Amino acid sequence: MIRKTRLFTPGPTPLLPAAQFAMAAADIHHRTAEFKALYSKVLAQLKEFVGTKNDVLLMAASGTGAMEASVSNLTSPGDRVLVLSAGKFGERWTSLAKAFGCEVDVVSAPYGKTFDLEEVRAALKPDTRAVYMQATETSTAIRHSVRGVADLLKAADSDALLVVDGITGLGTTHLDVDGWGIDVVVGGSQKAVMIPPGLAYLSVSERAFTRMGTTKNPRYYFDLLKERKNALKGDSSYTPSVALIAGLGAALDYIAAQGGGNLAEGRNKLIENAETCAAMTRAGVEALGLKLFAPDAPAAAATAVIAPEGVDSGVVVKELKARFAAIITNGQGEMQGKIFRIAHLGYFDYMDTIALVGALELVAIDTLKLPGVRLGDALTAAQKVFASRRPDEAAQQLAESQSSLAPMEVTAAR
Amino acid sequence: MIRKTRLFTPGPTPLLPAAQFAMAAADIHHRTAEFKALYSKVLAQLKEFVGTKNDVLLMAASGTGAMEASVSNLTSPGDRVLVLSAGKFGERWTSLAKAFGCEVDVVSAPYGKTFDLEEVRAALKPDTRAVYMQATETSTAIRHSVRGVADLLKAADSDALLVVDGITGLGTTHLDVDGWGIDVVVGGSQKAVMIPPGLAYLSVSERAFTRMGTTKNPRYYFDLLKERKNALKGDSSYTPSVALIAGLGAALDYIAAQGGGNLAEGRNKLIENAETCAAMTRAGVEALGLKLFAPDAPAAAATAVIAPEGVDSGVVVKELKARFAAIITNGQGEMQGKIFRIAHLGYFDYMDTIALVGALELVAIDTLKLPGVRLGDALTAAQKVFASRRPDEAAQQLAESQSSLAPMEVTAAR
Repeated sequence: MIRKTRLFTPGPTPLLPAAQFAMAAADIHHRTAEFKALYSKVLAQLKEFVGTKNDVLLMAASGTGAMEASVSNLTSPGDRVLVLSAGKFGERWTSLAKAFGCEVDVVSAPYGKTFDLEEVRAALKPDTRAVYMQATETSTAIRHSVRGVADLLKAADSDALLVVDGITGLGTTHLDVDGWGIDVVVGGSQKAVMIPPGLAYLSVSERAFTRMGTTKNPRYYFDLLKERKNALKGDSSYTPSVALIAGLGAALDYIAAQGGGNLAEGRNKLIENAETCAAMTRAGVEALGLKLFAPDAPAAAATAVIAPEGVDSGVVVKELKARFAAIITNGQGEMQGKIFRIAHLGYFDYMDTIALVGALELVAIDTLKLPGVRLGDALTAAQKVFASRRPDEAAQQLAESQSSLAPMEVTAAR
Repeated sequence: MIRKTRLFTPGPTPLLPAAQFAMAAADIHHRTAEFKALYSKVLAQLKEFVGTKNDVLLMAASGTGAMEASVSNLTSPGDRVLVLSAGKFGERWTSLAKAFGCEVDVVSAPYGKTFDLEEVRAALKPDTRAVYMQATETSTAIRHSVRGVADLLKAADSDALLVVDGITGLGTTHLDVDGWGIDVVVGGSQKAVMIPPGLAYLSVSERAFTRMGTTKNPRYYFDLLKERKNALKGDSSYTPSVALIAGLGAALDYIAAQGGGNLAEGRNKLIENAETCAAMTRAGVEALGLKLFAPDAPAAAATAVIAPEGVDSGVVVKELKARFAAIITNGQGEMQGKIFRIAHLGYFDYMDTIALVGALELVAIDTLKLPGVRLGDALTAAQKVFASRRPDEAAQQLAESQSSLAPMEVTAAR
């Protein structure tokens, strides 16, 4: 049987064809007016995508590069910072802060859970200079309450900067960056923005830029003040990743088109899209009798599923690849072998999702031999979720298409 | 909701990425050793794909061009020919034969049906010079019995050449070209071979080449004797469609790889693949209470479905496009508005097919309001078909992947 390779991984995600074409056509020099126009356009688009009036900077790096920039630019050796950690990417904040000589307080939650905000409040000290957290922890597929932490910082009248890793949160969860007061939001290219890895971006508040005037940690490639100065002129400090930037521009155009030309609206639709794919997947998984790993606050970016007792989750990953060329991911670190993860962020649609649920159902029955599961159970559960979430828009299109064609009764959504 | 455009049309069919890449890289001149090597390789591959020792010729044309070549090269004005016609493409043989001054006898079957072989036998006359038919009639999705007609010609000891339009039959139905004695088989590029339109090819028997020495109909661009002479040297008579030929080579490499390096085996797997997708789709359609248009001998190339009483089939086409960006086709000619068609030939897999069934189910429920249909019915029916057809190979892979990973019992196919 033919098997088309399809990524269902929380980065890299499926590529948008229009972005691929733009990347293939990107033979422009980066010190030209043509590139400056492209770069300025993409930086402006990113502000709308992130949803902030703050400047957004872009760099040739993976998301971790922008995470490092958020530490090296905002701290001095010996600064006290608070890391909220509930998975592999939370731990990365701790490693980065320690690498740059910070005094690190950690509030942690077990894998698959989110933080107790009371613990966060208790851990916040008068000299805490920054709080680092994820919007969604990709390794466990939990969604954290960025708003809860932001409110808590405001209530405490804290000087601490709030730095959010939104690498898988951007485009999958709502963040009111300016309203809540998020100083830095970090993003990556191979996530909801539908292009390959290689670009990181971050929005930076004035308060954070001001902080950079006094911090002492060393930085050169990731010098955000220098980057900002250049960005305002349409330049990058160092050779930019031109093809990826052209692809990003095309992807943001596509997202804007989804919102009728409005990028913020398009991003909201993208979040809704991920929510729908995630809800379909969760319903399918639960119909198989499998348990979600982060049921309290499941992220829309990805769904993490606990492997059945005595089964290595790698079996599910391998079977989906061998039988259907569908690529999902195992757990990371200590979660390897215990959970598997299915992504919904970015360029996924109904047909991708229902097909993945069908493939997973076959693996669950044929390989996992889950008791009491019949062919069609997961598919039906996912189908019901999609049918119940059908937007009015579809009913509208339905009415339009029928008016010129068919004698049938035109009715709105069921 | 994101909607990825997906073709489910019986030509053009979804493009194989490896073929797209080969096409993009095809900046070679056509009068060079490099091109000759490519061309000779592709012609040899096509013989294996068609399954014949006869020469296969290739031309920059749509399939209709090769159909014309099969008339203009094999007939003289006034020649009696027999056309077996049961749809739009059968009618095309009649139009072509008349355009070239032939005396045309026609055995026809109603749309959606195949021929009565007794009628064919009765229509065959001592001076019938050629019989023209389809392997599968794309406009109605019926499969004709090429073998039945070939046997009948042998039994009658007829001089008539057997010319088969295999444009959607190649790669979807078994044809024993040399064993049954098929003189010409016509194919097109935008079908089971997974590349865009623009190439036609045809296998030609020695008997047919001999006939060309005596026939009087005019031909120049489609002069098959000249084309054969050039092809033997690795040349084409006129400027060839270089990029498509490069793409076709890559596609045939892919098909061979599916057969473990054996192209004939790969073609057989491709046929099995189409059969599986078709069987899933038929089961889904029937679970919705819809009727197949050609139930007696449904083609694996495509499934034609009768629109419910009082409903224009264009509604289904429009809804699948509007809600899911899934492109299927309406009926052609007098069948327009009465049937819709879903393709399975070429680069389709389980995930494409189950997703299309899911989308069709939603349209059936939301738009067609088919009575007694519940969410999941069609999906479950299609899923059961796939599960029941699971090849042993999958069980084998299962065993291999589990042995190194999991403590579970390893069992063969259910």
